[in-house]
Amino acid sequence: MSELTHVDETGAARMVDVSGKDVSARSATATGRVLLSPAVVKLLRSGETPKGDALGVARIAGIMGAKRTPDLIPLCHPIALHGVKVTLDVEDWGVAITCRVKTADRTGVEMEALTAVSVAALALVDMVKAVDPAAVITDVRVEEKLGGKTGRWTRDEPA
Amino acid sequence: MSELTHVDETGAARMVDVSGKDVSARSATATGRVLLSPAVVKLLRSGETPKGDALGVARIAGIMGAKRTPDLIPLCHPIALHGVKVTLDVEDWGVAITCRVKTADRTGVEMEALTAVSVAALALVDMVKAVDPAAVITDVRVEEKLGGKTGRWTRDEPA
Amino acid sequence: MSELTHVDETGAARMVDVSGKDVSARSATATGRVLLSPAVVKLLRSGETPKGDALGVARIAGIMGAKRTPDLIPLCHPIALHGVKVTLDVEDWGVAITCRVKTADRTGVEMEALTAVSVAALALVDMVKAVDPAAVITDVRVEEKLGGKTGRWTRDEPA
Amino acid sequence: MSELTHVDETGAARMVDVSGKDVSARSATATGRVLLSPAVVKLLRSGETPKGDALGVARIAGIMGAKRTPDLIPLCHPIALHGVKVTLDVEDWGVAITCRVKTADRTGVEMEALTAVSVAALALVDMVKAVDPAAVITDVRVEEKLGGKTGRWTRDEPA
Amino acid sequence: MSELTHVDETGAARMVDVSGKDVSARSATATGRVLLSPAVVKLLRSGETPKGDALGVARIAGIMGAKRTPDLIPLCHPIALHGVKVTLDVEDWGVAITCRVKTADRTGVEMEALTAVSVAALALVDMVKAVDPAAVITDVRVEEKLGGKTGRWTRDEPA
Amino acid sequence: MSELTHVDETGAARMVDVSGKDVSARSATATGRVLLSPAVVKLLRSGETPKGDALGVARIAGIMGAKRTPDLIPLCHPIALHGVKVTLDVEDWGVAITCRVKTADRTGVEMEALTAVSVAALALVDMVKAVDPAAVITDVRVEEKLGGKTGRWTRDEPA
Repeated sequence: MSELTHVDETGAARMVDVSGKDVSARSATATGRVLLSPAVVKLLRSGETPKGDALGVARIAGIMGAKRTPDLIPLCHPIALHGVKVTLDVEDWGVAITCRVKTADRTGVEMEALTAVSVAALALVDMVKAVDPAAVITDVRVEEKLGGKTGRWTRDEPA
Repeated sequence: MSELTHVDETGAARMVDVSGKDVSARSATATGRVLLSPAVVKLLRSGETPKGDALGVARIAGIMGAKRTPDLIPLCHPIALHGVKVTLDVEDWGVAITCRVKTADRTGVEMEALTAVSVAALALVDMVKAVDPAAVITDVRVEEKLGGKTGRWTRDEPA
Repeated sequence: MSELTHVDETGAARMVDVSGKDVSARSATATGRVLLSPAVVKLLRSGETPKGDALGVARIAGIMGAKRTPDLIPLCHPIALHGVKVTLDVEDWGVAITCRVKTADRTGVEMEALTAVSVAALALVDMVKAVDPAAVITDVRVEEKLGGKTGRWTRDEPA
Repeated sequence: MSELTHVDETGAARMVDVSGKDVSARSATATGRVLLSPAVVKLLRSGETPKGDALGVARIAGIMGAKRTPDLIPLCHPIALHGVKVTLDVEDWGVAITCRVKTADRTGVEMEALTAVSVAALALVDMVKAVDPAAVITDVRVEEKLGGKTGRWTRDEPA
Repeated sequence: MSELTHVDETGAARMVDVSGKDVSARSATATGRVLLSPAVVKLLRSGETPKGDALGVARIAGIMGAKRTPDLIPLCHPIALHGVKVTLDVEDWGVAITCRVKTADRTGVEMEALTAVSVAALALVDMVKAVDPAAVITDVRVEEKLGGKTGRWTRDEPA
Repeated sequence: MSELTHVDETGAARMVDVSGKDVSARSATATGRVLLSPAVVKLLRSGETPKGDALGVARIAGIMGAKRTPDLIPLCHPIALHGVKVTLDVEDWGVAITCRVKTADRTGVEMEALTAVSVAALALVDMVKAVDPAAVITDVRVEEKLGGKTGRWTRDEPA
């Protein structure tokens, strides 16, 4: 079984040396869900003004969260980000969040995509928590990863 | 139905004015789960060195994440934190994360607890992603909230 | 003439000791303007979708900027913020920005209000710069300051 | 009329994908002014010690502010900065601030230059606000932009 | 022998709960030294302009560093700072740095004082490293601590 | 004698323009020591659990500190980091810290290595300060620097 790459032979954490990796175009898509009460879903779906801003704030939080990834995740490399897109869709059960991140660097950007989804979800929960203190963030996961040595990985056909 | 407190009467986002709220002892407990492959669970459970550090890194990331909450969540108030404890337990299906945050301030700390759980989970995923790219963060939610005007809220007996 | 409070008797910068100041309710209002081309004003005024998000992003940036004030301004004290409201109004000449910040602490919050206005203005310029590279941020200033030893100060009746 | 590049076809904010842009040498120059009372101008002009430090603190704040641009401006890309120079000149009406930023990356650096000018101006206002609460930050704008697809843009000969 | 307060009974790191501690006036003084080559000392001592700014930049870096303490030190509580003063004195062997920090909160501020000294020292090394790559930061330590349950602690009379 | 590179001809601080420098593989190694009481050394050396986490927290703090270098050191360039390794060894007199940083960029990474050592040392002091308030951070210095125009520099054979 492969070893954890972020710990050395003595088990100590380290930021993995990626000097030997190629700079190449890479992207990653992550998704997540925020389960909300019917009352909040109705509120987000109504044409009333709150809707736009609640989702808009979460979207901005997600994009900014992607940029904070190396500040938050101890062993993540600080890398350039070429594009970040966060989408929030209101569903019957709550809000579906998707984030796609692109770069051309030596490491993948799946942590940036996962962080963006998580921070967008947290920001959304913050906006609705007075109405729905029981909101749940769930199914935060990588869907697809392109580029680098491993090429393409998708959840359905993991390779 | 109650309104979203983070938007004003025109629907614009704002940081809610808490001047009128009392400074009081408050705490919040949040939990979450990271679903991992049996191979990673075995690795985390083995007595080998990686285990300690992988969970230790996630725990530190969670504690530091709690402190970054107002930087990440646009409308969260910057507040004092009196104590943060993050626990990670390896289970058959992955890792269970619990975070308890305490303060004495004008706002609750459920967002800090949720953020700590999310960041600990993200850091754990980062540590194992080379071995298990399909890891899933799930069920991130507030379990209990004490203090402030609303007193005690628990997920099982919400009111 | 009064001395600069942020430098000591040898002229060296310091973070002024406010231990002796009272914790009291304080607020500050700052304003600023972003001068834009008629084309951008028309775009912001149109009912088309970009409008909402461009102003919404600037509003969020301003609120988050208020929280970053002690990170940005070397001698500012890190303080609690009880409420932050940022308003953006589209006018014929561009966008008028107003920010009101409230706290109960030992120092005033005019720097937080000014920083929020500046960051909101910068974020707006960033959103429109491809269309209007000549946008100008102007007239960023404190309008009113309440609380603390000096009581009420307004631009029109400064004393 | 060109569209706002930072919003997608549905009007949602995004960090624009710059993968297709070339890495090239780019620079930007921004300026701004802080209007001050004659008393403060005299103080800054006097040979007394405070002068150096007040302007020195603002200069450092501006340089550090340039580095914080992607943290502050939601949709700005995190990029490398190759050089940042901030100049403050005391004039009869206050202080003139100029910032030049250089990079070799996929996006321009006018936002970094504008942010540096704004933060330097805010830091200066903070230093003098006890003496001059009516200080005004004004005329913050891009003067020149070199490199990238658009080549050279100057305020006087916009192209 | 006393236990490490930052780890719980299972050895896991935590942010210690200080809810039970009193808010009281506290201060701490830390010192440190940067050993420099005679050439750099001469340069810093000369009346030429570089001197002022090199020491001024280090002083500002130290003050800002004090504010970043909870971001850097994983288990430090985020607390209010009431005053920070950083002094740099050029000596024959290099530069002596002293920092005094004051607060009124539930925890001491010795980590803030030590962090300010360290960051000021690092910034100074950065300024002179092209001339003196062998600079050494040494003797960074708490000299005095006042307030809280332990009252007064000084290095010479530790109890 | 060479001049300070971080100040211009008028003595004003600036972020040096490195546009003309080559992107090349660079690395730096820095070391430092934390002098501790025999009681703390014994505690760290014992097989009891606290040991692992105290050193583990310091190691993580050091790695994360390396990434915060441009935020802390005013004139440091924001650069990519390809690998960071922090080692802590318990000795009779305390803890020896070593950090190696690698990159491929236009500037050296000795400040990142020094910052990692300093932050790891500060975090360790924070962990033991209740037991040993007299801990001292000492001998923080660059040991070796590879790459760039100057090639190899080592403390013993400085060139």
